[in-house]
Amino acid sequence: MDEPIIRELEENDFKKGFLNVLDTLRETSNITEDKALEIFKNIKSNPKHIIVVAEINEKIVGSTTLLIEPKFIHQGGIVGHIEDVVVSKEFQGKKIGKKIIKYVLELAKNQGCYKTILDCSDDVKAFYEEIGFKYHSNELRFNHI
Amino acid sequence: MDEPIIRELEENDFKKGFLNVLDTLRETSNITEDKALEIFKNIKSNPKHIIVVAEINEKIVGSTTLLIEPKFIHQGGIVGHIEDVVVSKEFQGKKIGKKIIKYVLELAKNQGCYKTILDCSDDVKAFYEEIGFKYHSNELRFNHI
Repeated sequence: MDEPIIRELEENDFKKGFLNVLDTLRETSNITEDKALEIFKNIKSNPKHIIVVAEINEKIVGSTTLLIEPKFIHQGGIVGHIEDVVVSKEFQGKKIGKKIIKYVLELAKNQGCYKTILDCSDDVKAFYEEIGFKYHSNELRFNHI
Repeated sequence: MDEPIIRELEENDFKKGFLNVLDTLRETSNITEDKALEIFKNIKSNPKHIIVVAEINEKIVGSTTLLIEPKFIHQGGIVGHIEDVVVSKEFQGKKIGKKIIKYVLELAKNQGCYKTILDCSDDVKAFYEEIGFKYHSNELRFNHI
């Protein structure tokens, strides 16, 4: 298998199957092109909201999101938040997820983060622990609808 | 006790003890005025990063942070992230925390969020459950330093 290129999301990635990769998490590719472009522009307008993709042979096969949060506490410390880690089903088990996480941790470090956090279910906890994450607390959720 | 006014953070709140309230989480008031102002401006430049405060008699007594994250998944759904919920020690046990959370949930709903999430330790889990949050998954942490 060719090595994946890991980089930031570009507009052209919609043509390379970016939304189909997100279908692995939850059906996404059924949104209209206009809606996808509107979300893309909204996210790109915020330099602290970074979407990363993995590309193999002109095809997007994985993705994640990094939110950068400057805080007053921790001497003006900066925190990275990882969201929506995903690899297409047919590309799972090839260490692509690990490469995406390592890339995004490096990105967070370069942005000055002293820690990066994420929420995950029990079945993928060991995957993150292998990379160096440690259990810290509970994620709670409030549904507005 | 007078009712707290819950509203967004303003520059003048540094004079009303905002950083001292954060000391309840971790020593913060020892950062310089210039540094605090730099962080304030950095945060204010991002309309999706909202810091909320509770004020009683011209004094800040509590705070929290809301990050707004537009996503591609969930039909372009929007997620709220709550961070750093705090009430000054001498004002705890007066339902101020609950008022701050309810305010920020309303804010998230008005921003179009379908869910709002937060991470918390076991000892404050019941507090959030009473408001309507439900346990969802694990929070994991990676230390860069």
